[in-house]
Amino acid sequence: MPVRAAVAGASGYAGGEVLRLLLGHPEVEIGAVTAHGNAGQRLGVVQPHLVPLAGRELVATTAEALAGHDVIFLALPHGQSAAVAEALGPEALVVDCGADFRLADAAAWEQFYGSPHAGTWPYGLPELPGAREALRGARRIAVPGCYPTAVSLALFPAYAAGLAEPEAVVVAASGASGAGKAPKPHLLGSEVMGSMSPYGVGGVHRHTPEMAQNLGAVAGEPVTVSFTPTLAPMSRGILATCSAKARPGVDAADVRAAYEKALGDEPFVRLLPEGQWPSTAAVYGSNIALVQVALDTAAGRIVVVSAIDNLTKGTAGGAVQSMNIALGLDEATGLSTIGVAP
Amino acid sequence: MPVRAAVAGASGYAGGEVLRLLLGHPEVEIGAVTAHGNAGQRLGVVQPHLVPLAGRELVATTAEALAGHDVIFLALPHGQSAAVAEALGPEALVVDCGADFRLADAAAWEQFYGSPHAGTWPYGLPELPGAREALRGARRIAVPGCYPTAVSLALFPAYAAGLAEPEAVVVAASGASGAGKAPKPHLLGSEVMGSMSPYGVGGVHRHTPEMAQNLGAVAGEPVTVSFTPTLAPMSRGILATCSAKARPGVDAADVRAAYEKALGDEPFVRLLPEGQWPSTAAVYGSNIALVQVALDTAAGRIVVVSAIDNLTKGTAGGAVQSMNIALGLDEATGLSTIGVAP
Amino acid sequence: MPVRAAVAGASGYAGGEVLRLLLGHPEVEIGAVTAHGNAGQRLGVVQPHLVPLAGRELVATTAEALAGHDVIFLALPHGQSAAVAEALGPEALVVDCGADFRLADAAAWEQFYGSPHAGTWPYGLPELPGAREALRGARRIAVPGCYPTAVSLALFPAYAAGLAEPEAVVVAASGASGAGKAPKPHLLGSEVMGSMSPYGVGGVHRHTPEMAQNLGAVAGEPVTVSFTPTLAPMSRGILATCSAKARPGVDAADVRAAYEKALGDEPFVRLLPEGQWPSTAAVYGSNIALVQVALDTAAGRIVVVSAIDNLTKGTAGGAVQSMNIALGLDEATGLSTIGVAP
Amino acid sequence: MPVRAAVAGASGYAGGEVLRLLLGHPEVEIGAVTAHGNAGQRLGVVQPHLVPLAGRELVATTAEALAGHDVIFLALPHGQSAAVAEALGPEALVVDCGADFRLADAAAWEQFYGSPHAGTWPYGLPELPGAREALRGARRIAVPGCYPTAVSLALFPAYAAGLAEPEAVVVAASGASGAGKAPKPHLLGSEVMGSMSPYGVGGVHRHTPEMAQNLGAVAGEPVTVSFTPTLAPMSRGILATCSAKARPGVDAADVRAAYEKALGDEPFVRLLPEGQWPSTAAVYGSNIALVQVALDTAAGRIVVVSAIDNLTKGTAGGAVQSMNIALGLDEATGLSTIGVAP
Repeated sequence: MPVRAAVAGASGYAGGEVLRLLLGHPEVEIGAVTAHGNAGQRLGVVQPHLVPLAGRELVATTAEALAGHDVIFLALPHGQSAAVAEALGPEALVVDCGADFRLADAAAWEQFYGSPHAGTWPYGLPELPGAREALRGARRIAVPGCYPTAVSLALFPAYAAGLAEPEAVVVAASGASGAGKAPKPHLLGSEVMGSMSPYGVGGVHRHTPEMAQNLGAVAGEPVTVSFTPTLAPMSRGILATCSAKARPGVDAADVRAAYEKALGDEPFVRLLPEGQWPSTAAVYGSNIALVQVALDTAAGRIVVVSAIDNLTKGTAGGAVQSMNIALGLDEATGLSTIGVAP
Repeated sequence: MPVRAAVAGASGYAGGEVLRLLLGHPEVEIGAVTAHGNAGQRLGVVQPHLVPLAGRELVATTAEALAGHDVIFLALPHGQSAAVAEALGPEALVVDCGADFRLADAAAWEQFYGSPHAGTWPYGLPELPGAREALRGARRIAVPGCYPTAVSLALFPAYAAGLAEPEAVVVAASGASGAGKAPKPHLLGSEVMGSMSPYGVGGVHRHTPEMAQNLGAVAGEPVTVSFTPTLAPMSRGILATCSAKARPGVDAADVRAAYEKALGDEPFVRLLPEGQWPSTAAVYGSNIALVQVALDTAAGRIVVVSAIDNLTKGTAGGAVQSMNIALGLDEATGLSTIGVAP
Repeated sequence: MPVRAAVAGASGYAGGEVLRLLLGHPEVEIGAVTAHGNAGQRLGVVQPHLVPLAGRELVATTAEALAGHDVIFLALPHGQSAAVAEALGPEALVVDCGADFRLADAAAWEQFYGSPHAGTWPYGLPELPGAREALRGARRIAVPGCYPTAVSLALFPAYAAGLAEPEAVVVAASGASGAGKAPKPHLLGSEVMGSMSPYGVGGVHRHTPEMAQNLGAVAGEPVTVSFTPTLAPMSRGILATCSAKARPGVDAADVRAAYEKALGDEPFVRLLPEGQWPSTAAVYGSNIALVQVALDTAAGRIVVVSAIDNLTKGTAGGAVQSMNIALGLDEATGLSTIGVAP
Repeated sequence: MPVRAAVAGASGYAGGEVLRLLLGHPEVEIGAVTAHGNAGQRLGVVQPHLVPLAGRELVATTAEALAGHDVIFLALPHGQSAAVAEALGPEALVVDCGADFRLADAAAWEQFYGSPHAGTWPYGLPELPGAREALRGARRIAVPGCYPTAVSLALFPAYAAGLAEPEAVVVAASGASGAGKAPKPHLLGSEVMGSMSPYGVGGVHRHTPEMAQNLGAVAGEPVTVSFTPTLAPMSRGILATCSAKARPGVDAADVRAAYEKALGDEPFVRLLPEGQWPSTAAVYGSNIALVQVALDTAAGRIVVVSAIDNLTKGTAGGAVQSMNIALGLDEATGLSTIGVAP
């Protein structure tokens, strides 16, 4: 009997990507697809690339529309998930692609999101130590932010092995789909093409405490993250350049060994052969994270670069991967490590 | 027992796309992957998006390397397929992504390609009248050019229904991957980004006689094609804007009906609902052609726009689709109508 | 004494480009810069590339704000120019970058724009036969549409020389800035990048009657234009591929001669040496139109490709060029034929 | 009497940009334009955007061709400038856009460039303390690297004021023109578009010692730079995200004051109003550097972002600016702070 899945927020980029992946998932049957402003539209108008669903009608996002499904993916604006989830009952698996339940620290939540903390759900980044265990059988999953996915996968091996000082510096470039589908002047094609620009500089981006939470848990001590996100002229992809001072005595072999140990068996992270570096093109549409690491001996820093597709491994693919674990399916079901390139 | 497939020219864009699709084909096992200049390299270096094949070694393109496979895909420079195919014997299915065997008219071949005509193989555009029959059981397949695929699918319904005068005008925009992976100054990112430019203007592009051949066969009379290809600042995709004078008395309902009749049942062509127009973004990585048609009554022309992914439906996807037919598999096996967007 | 110029609609793309050019115009002093929704903002926030004007405040677009200038550039949404112009008095030179006064045919205006015809002003495409004379001393100028600029420059020589049948076919690709700065979902960077898409297909685009008007006047008989605009993944630029059947007996030398005669002395049109084709990259930020022509003898068509920067020669540069003529200045003052490339 | 200037390497990106700027320089007359592989070509074929020079012939790069000019710009591959410069005599002003004479430390040169050190010339970044004095009357100028320009302008104010620890971390994104015009597979449009990728990671990029040299001189103590360059899908532009730990007790007002003091009077650096961040789009084709700074109190770091056009302020514009100083002209002659946007 197939798993019946609903997608709330199906007209946006995250919701569309969830649908794209579920269409290729052999155990899932797509039920309700809901939207807010686009309710009543055919999906073919809003998501013309999802040809097999072109005739489906988007219905309004209500508890009634979402009830009766085994899994409900929420791809809603921040702050809307709690009310919807509450109405859904404890048996259904609710996978929240929003931020509402990612942070354990209520104060950090309130500082960065400016609203009361709704709670904390099992965190859907299976590669982090202990995460798979928490996801098995879970009925609520908080899908990580796209930047924290790229950055945590890049840096946790160094912290797990005790190789790095607890002060990370991260500069990441994201494709414009990370900013969503709501039209704003600075996201127009004319503005984005041919331009790199930073935003949320100086420690104010909302994904900062999420990175600190993940890395701090692995390190066993607080880790600060100086995080600068930049908007790149591409639709998809995150390239995260991450570094931290190497602890005294750490050499290149230590670093390589730590990364091989932490990432070597992961189905959706690939530590590249030495000398080869990741690109976002290579992960376009795929659920894999490509990672490479170097030790800059002159500067005394471990430098790690990771590339993900922000909508796949960074959102919808991570969501499906965690769903698979929660439901007891093979973790890789319906997910691909093959990108679409060039 | 799986179909064992080899890919010659696996380091290029066409060969890489064949591999990407074969990786998702449930009946195919990938055998030899061969190259010329890149022989000896790991595939992971040359095609980093094909993660499951990263460790595979590219071997030199020789008859020996390609022998012993059920299917051999040739993704070689024009003029190299004949010699390779001859050495492979008549039992193996040889699918040529190059131009060598596309044209029936030896004079046209020699005029446009400047070399002796090698022959004519069954033409791998199943949607054309009679094409599926010719492909069933075939052991040699000539995969159409990317532009002729987009243009023939756009215009053949009008000619099949006798609605259009035999003088077509086509302007098509292609992503840069259509020009291949051999580095040339005008294909550099710095040159391509932010720029539209034409090439092969005035009836000299090699795909022109192929379009004329396809449309003429459907029309039952010679069709001239004024074809202007342009290079667009994107990696993949072809948008073909095609038009021809409407025959006297043709109205919009005639046109719609002809297109619905010709395309309505095709698994890999979608005539869009009226008012919706195709984009290359919607077919990125997918094997579908999106088509829309309008009658411009003031100008007296039928205007058709089609969008394909030049590497998928325009090359490797078309090749796999035709292979499926030749081998007696379901035509859609291993092929998707779902694009990766945005 | 400098010419004092105001710009209404200075926060949009057309208005910003007018300001960019006026900043380099030795005879002009920039006066009021006005806006609607952005009134009260510093120009540096809205147009950060116009560094010398960064501290200027955008004021509300009112007759009072615009009064007292020698020249007023209107870069307003269609339909708003007439009321503003009326309030400005007959002595000021009003240069309208909008469509309101471009068409002579009131019926065509009403059919395509759906509102009453406001009148007809001298048409600001100096290269057309007779246009310069009409612009000298004019106090009202209708700046042509961007597409009609590219298409008229490409095709008028053929019609002026009587070489082409009166049925033109045009497919043009435009950068996204042509669609303006008002945010709409389909203009988001995520949607535009990597994608070509058509719009206004089938003879419904508003620039169609303007092209027909220009070409018909030159030809001395009505000319129909089958026009398909497409949106290309770039910020600026128009590449127009235009063709028409050659009249019987026309040969390549006739065509070349006609184009050399018509364009050879133009300061802002360059007929390229034979064999070289235009690209939008080469005209980025410049006021030049690059043109090349070929005769496709097999299809019997004259094929012309032109490239312009839609914001410069296609809007603001054309506006300044016409202003120069109207004011009796050297036509090239403050305008450049040098693009910014790569 | 105009300054007569020759450009060696005029077919490349740097040489083309030098020519673009010299065309707008009121005191300069363009003499010889030389090339290597493209010698004998018309400039219009190789640099089609430089319309006024389209008919000029590229001659071979020889001492004879370059002799007899007041200024010679060298835009040659690394390692070729010394021999050419020697043949030119001491009176001519030689402005080297290459790396050969940038580094004072012969050991660093040999480590990073792998060839004997040719010497050190006055360094063409006038904004650095003491640089203008060294440039006045100079007859040899070493134009800085593009990355060092962006990074030095971003960080020197913090070091000049003693606000930052001597360990800088820099991640910069560059447009593809920074990699030059020699065709290589990884620079193809198909590879670059839609992709961010790092290169030269781990302290091995050749611009690293140049940054350390500049910042160390200002700081009065050695400064290490952890530098990661990335290739962005755009033709032009560098966005440099730079940070360093704030010294104890430093607050936001100290930082702001230091930047206003260091940059406030510079004609070609603009410290943006608080809250506004630079983008490469805003500096496209302009000679300005846009800079903004923030203090991340949680991470304890000063974060600075700068944007330049790598070909203008980062190469040719910086070269002309330094030439102006050397020749005793107004520093801003022929240079613009106005970008071409969108």
